[in-house]
Amino acid sequence: MSDGWKIREASYSAETAKAYEGLFTQGSGYLHVRGSIEEHFSDTPQNVTYTRMPANVTSEKFPETKAKWGTYVPGVYGKHPLLNWELINLPWFLEIGPTVAGERLDMEKSRIEGYTRELDLASGTLRRSLVWQTESGEIEVTFERFASAERKHVFVQRVTLSSKSAIEVVISGGIDSDVRTNGYDHFTAVELREFEGSGVECSVTTDGGDTVRTVSRFTAPDADWKATIEPRRATLSSCLLIPAGGTLTVEKRTAVTTSRDIDLVDAGDVLREVAGMSFEQLADENQLVWDERWRNSDVRIDGDPEGQLAMRTSLFHLHRCHVPDDDRVAIDAKGYAGDAYFGRFFWDTEIYLLPFFLYTDPDRARTLVDFRVRTLPGARDNAADYGYPGARFPWESDSFGRESCSLWQYRDHEIHVTADVVYGMVHYAVATQTPGFLVGDAADVITDTARYWIARMDRRPDEEHPSILGVMGPDEYSPITSNNSYTNRIVSLNLAIAAQVGQATGVAEEECAAWAEAARALPVLQDENGLTMQCEEWEHFAEPDFERFWLDRSKTFAAQVSQERLYRTKCLKQGDVTMMMVLFPRDFTDEEAKIAWDYYLPYTTHDSSLSAGTHAILACRLGLSEEAWKFWRMSSGIDLDIKHGAVAEGIHIASSGANWQIAVNGFAGMASAMETTTLTFNPKLPAAWTRLAFPVVWNGCRVQVDLNHTELTLTNYGECELPVVVAGREATLFPTGILTFSYKKEG
Amino acid sequence: MSDGWKIREASYSAETAKAYEGLFTQGSGYLHVRGSIEEHFSDTPQNVTYTRMPANVTSEKFPETKAKWGTYVPGVYGKHPLLNWELINLPWFLEIGPTVAGERLDMEKSRIEGYTRELDLASGTLRRSLVWQTESGEIEVTFERFASAERKHVFVQRVTLSSKSAIEVVISGGIDSDVRTNGYDHFTAVELREFEGSGVECSVTTDGGDTVRTVSRFTAPDADWKATIEPRRATLSSCLLIPAGGTLTVEKRTAVTTSRDIDLVDAGDVLREVAGMSFEQLADENQLVWDERWRNSDVRIDGDPEGQLAMRTSLFHLHRCHVPDDDRVAIDAKGYAGDAYFGRFFWDTEIYLLPFFLYTDPDRARTLVDFRVRTLPGARDNAADYGYPGARFPWESDSFGRESCSLWQYRDHEIHVTADVVYGMVHYAVATQTPGFLVGDAADVITDTARYWIARMDRRPDEEHPSILGVMGPDEYSPITSNNSYTNRIVSLNLAIAAQVGQATGVAEEECAAWAEAARALPVLQDENGLTMQCEEWEHFAEPDFERFWLDRSKTFAAQVSQERLYRTKCLKQGDVTMMMVLFPRDFTDEEAKIAWDYYLPYTTHDSSLSAGTHAILACRLGLSEEAWKFWRMSSGIDLDIKHGAVAEGIHIASSGANWQIAVNGFAGMASAMETTTLTFNPKLPAAWTRLAFPVVWNGCRVQVDLNHTELTLTNYGECELPVVVAGREATLFPTGILTFSYKKEG
Repeated sequence: MSDGWKIREASYSAETAKAYEGLFTQGSGYLHVRGSIEEHFSDTPQNVTYTRMPANVTSEKFPETKAKWGTYVPGVYGKHPLLNWELINLPWFLEIGPTVAGERLDMEKSRIEGYTRELDLASGTLRRSLVWQTESGEIEVTFERFASAERKHVFVQRVTLSSKSAIEVVISGGIDSDVRTNGYDHFTAVELREFEGSGVECSVTTDGGDTVRTVSRFTAPDADWKATIEPRRATLSSCLLIPAGGTLTVEKRTAVTTSRDIDLVDAGDVLREVAGMSFEQLADENQLVWDERWRNSDVRIDGDPEGQLAMRTSLFHLHRCHVPDDDRVAIDAKGYAGDAYFGRFFWDTEIYLLPFFLYTDPDRARTLVDFRVRTLPGARDNAADYGYPGARFPWESDSFGRESCSLWQYRDHEIHVTADVVYGMVHYAVATQTPGFLVGDAADVITDTARYWIARMDRRPDEEHPSILGVMGPDEYSPITSNNSYTNRIVSLNLAIAAQVGQATGVAEEECAAWAEAARALPVLQDENGLTMQCEEWEHFAEPDFERFWLDRSKTFAAQVSQERLYRTKCLKQGDVTMMMVLFPRDFTDEEAKIAWDYYLPYTTHDSSLSAGTHAILACRLGLSEEAWKFWRMSSGIDLDIKHGAVAEGIHIASSGANWQIAVNGFAGMASAMETTTLTFNPKLPAAWTRLAFPVVWNGCRVQVDLNHTELTLTNYGECELPVVVAGREATLFPTGILTFSYKKEG
Repeated sequence: MSDGWKIREASYSAETAKAYEGLFTQGSGYLHVRGSIEEHFSDTPQNVTYTRMPANVTSEKFPETKAKWGTYVPGVYGKHPLLNWELINLPWFLEIGPTVAGERLDMEKSRIEGYTRELDLASGTLRRSLVWQTESGEIEVTFERFASAERKHVFVQRVTLSSKSAIEVVISGGIDSDVRTNGYDHFTAVELREFEGSGVECSVTTDGGDTVRTVSRFTAPDADWKATIEPRRATLSSCLLIPAGGTLTVEKRTAVTTSRDIDLVDAGDVLREVAGMSFEQLADENQLVWDERWRNSDVRIDGDPEGQLAMRTSLFHLHRCHVPDDDRVAIDAKGYAGDAYFGRFFWDTEIYLLPFFLYTDPDRARTLVDFRVRTLPGARDNAADYGYPGARFPWESDSFGRESCSLWQYRDHEIHVTADVVYGMVHYAVATQTPGFLVGDAADVITDTARYWIARMDRRPDEEHPSILGVMGPDEYSPITSNNSYTNRIVSLNLAIAAQVGQATGVAEEECAAWAEAARALPVLQDENGLTMQCEEWEHFAEPDFERFWLDRSKTFAAQVSQERLYRTKCLKQGDVTMMMVLFPRDFTDEEAKIAWDYYLPYTTHDSSLSAGTHAILACRLGLSEEAWKFWRMSSGIDLDIKHGAVAEGIHIASSGANWQIAVNGFAGMASAMETTTLTFNPKLPAAWTRLAFPVVWNGCRVQVDLNHTELTLTNYGECELPVVVAGREATLFPTGILTFSYKKEG
């Protein structure tokens, strides 16, 4: 297995501990645990209650600590007094702390050599090795752990200790419920007790009304486990022997279950079920699941080891984050890898995350669209709260579809999310060739959102067309604008689909006609030079004068000027018109796209991590290979840039989705199903990449795509006959067929 | 003394208790106490800590309680964890609770008849009478109290109890420090003890670092006071006798002093000083101060008893709120009569409050402008925080000039306050004929604000003039607009004055020239029909459709639609262009004013209490007598409208100032000193008013103005010769002279 599968931490540093915690988050979809070290730190309490909140908390402005535990089960939410409903950080069960002659292993105080830690993306296994110089002698220590992809409730840990001389070691560890989520304690009751002699169990009741049960069990030869039960933590410990010239192996297995599980099961029973299985057996069955995931989704990149690792990191976390068989949740903004963004669901779901699943595993994509169907009642309540009929999806959704965003400029004005939801549903239907979904499960969402949009529009005197006023588009630095083109265009799609769906489902003819008419009439603004305008106000904004105000380009523009300046200035947080052009490529000629690119790029700060992906894809379309490469690097590098540590509070999971899109829709030039029913490629392979290979599912068929600078080969693993277009040439890909298209290397 | 001097509560009701608490607030300028009843309620604790704050707390959205104590010393601020620095609600010292045979007097549980309470505006004395049917017999009870206007630290109380039969009564009362401010406990230390046998004392240390000492002493014949000291309260009680057919009189005197007093004095010493004075003596010296205040400021209105009482209520609270000889504070938004708006200082200071003092007692006006001079360092810090040079006054100022507003749309964008401050300084200088003030104490404020404005301006490509983008004008329903005319106009004044002041104080020639040029070039927008535009975006906003969305006109429009709708709609919270026309009347012809009036009025919700006053004054100018009357009623009625209870959280002190302006600048038609150096009247007396009389100070001379529908008489009590213009006729008013102008009754 190549190095393209392992993320390695070569040495320990306090400065980067939190970043690795985020990056090394493991999970089964059901259960997620940040990459905290097993023995923890002696000086980093995790039970700090924030009595004073910083103003305008949105995401990552939390008190600085060296390490932050995170244990999450998607869907377990509680009400934070200031931040609304949020995903609860659950009791921490990773602890395994070895103590020798009174010295507990400590990354900062112990004498440690040969430290290395790596996450094997192929199986999601985290492995840490080090040599510990104790008073009693040198011990080689290796920690291993994984969340079982086969058994979603189970987390498996092992530590091996080897020494030349016999050394007595006390191993202790347990479950610590004295944790906070964004400085708040969500537990209304905690019960801790011993479990079957070699384990401890913890039940917490949350302020959201759920009960979460965590049971951990140790196994080790000749152990005599003693339990210590404190008010908020339960610990087991035993004195054990590392035999001279031998190895002591201690396992810890944990199961987590909740009262809201679809198939209710007891955590103790889960542990009992696997009691007869070895660590290796558990590892093997986990590996099998991951093998299949990778088979169906791996993106192979030759010639760019850094990019290869970044891509697999993205795909690993996308797989990890998908909650199996549960449409009561989607994938939260930080990929269940931190408290930031509060475990909420944004437009990321449809625009950034859905495509990866849609084209690699449509069944898993379905839970993401079904999540919006399920939260329609919340969207209806939300519309009513604002005084509108129909359904208005929340900017920040909790698992009930409740609007949870605490900052009004986003909550009130970034309304495009409602149409983004419908875009996702249409995308699902066309990509999976299941139009029945739109007139079936999705119908109420589609027609109710249309009702909201009609009510949300204004018709100004002396104007023929309706307008959508007072909105924030994808560019969050223009908070309240009129006829934002992105918003209008995607609302137009929403209305046009609603008119069709309405006709099929018995909505009154006049209402459908009104939707169709509004869909046609909503303007997408263009000036006399063919420049597509972001919004009506754009030209009246101030010039940004970046030279003067954006001195440190390693930091965001927003970090260097006031929000007040951002809001009156021509500066984009992320592409807005360019985003529209990526979602609706056929609406715009290459020339129009180039005019927009040239005009907006100098104004775009890319302060949002979502910006680079869009720009990389549009750059590919426009043949701007250097720009495409730059934005690919920018997008794919975010979470692996340990030094800047943006990953500390969680994974940029939307960027992970964007990274897949850059490779597939950008560099391989695959047209989305929103554009065409024909599998289409216009390769724009970066100069550095000697080969790009990935599978996609198109119209139910899995097709392997394999390209380099001179040819592209399609292998059909499915049973349907697919018309394909590669670099403008049409052909038919028969079942089990292979087609190779040759073309000249660009440039 | 006519009824025009007393506000009467005819019967007790729980529903209106809090409103009367606000309305009956008494104070010495230094010390303010809400009109809570002496024996309090048994079921309304005052120590409730709010653990969960409502979102977007601005002013009056607090948990509903029947009664809310309030004791304030302007300048005593503490830091609320969510709301920034706020005026601290201090220990409550009003308690006097009579108990007969185990029954404590209770407005809700006792059998009470003949209840009446009235505030005598002439002296600030609050008097409550009732007949209490006890088990032991009927007792007539009268509570009286006042804050001494002569001795600002002293609060005087008396209760008299009369009965036909002899009745034993236990009188208890003390100091309760277990109070909160907006649900937060600001006291870091509390000390309570007995004081000289018949008193109790309380020292609290605040989280703002101040110490506040409260000492209360009871006096009554044959009393044997026993002190009970609890952790947060100290109480005295004594068993006393109401003699058969006689009266028992109990006095309670309290002194409050703080460690931040300019003349440090001990509260105990203050009480000792007045120990030899009788209640009547203290009342008499208080009356003398009030007599002088009324002599210098009373506005007499004949023919409109309701209006007369409203006017005197306004003037009473204005006098009460002015903090004597202390320019470290101004007058807070709620007139030191409640926790709402956090004891902060707004543009109200210059635009709504200053004129009353300026034209009735210029010495007292001076502390208001000096307050801004003193807080210049805070304004400089504030500018720097936003990345600007110079000085930027905060939208919500605490006593250090720190920006305390927690909502960004106001804090960031309602920047006109900075120019309003300079407007006030210019107003002070011209009204008092002390131009030296501008080039002296005010010079740094004026030039530093100009520096801020120059940096805050943008110059857009292809435009000759500078622009001020991204602002909220006085109309707070248009949050981020370009070239708001009000803002531009008042900034233009700021810059023009700065250019003059700069030249006189040695600012570089080029800088002064740049200020003068920007002052000339800043646009005040007008369309082709002569309509002055509120801002560039105005015409692109949506129509409000009030018929559909504003169904209950007894409530604000904002209460019935979402903020999101407000922000995209042509709906004004208060006049914006009209406000500019009131402040700069000579800039606009009557025709232009009428065009603006006709256009904006249908869009104006008057959701702000500040709106009616402006409209009344402009209506007078335009001869719209019915409209003027309507807006006078609207403005003057706010705090006396007990039923709607807007006064519950404090006095609308800006409206109080506006009420004076309506009478003087509106109905008497007196031009402000910003318009003319000549004392000028254009009377527009309402039909119902048979006489309007008031004193004004003009150019240092006190002139009594007395008018009816046919004539206006000016009596000069000063020593200067004043050119005057009345209804267009010029004359000269000689020292001690009297001039009567006759004119036809309008209409």
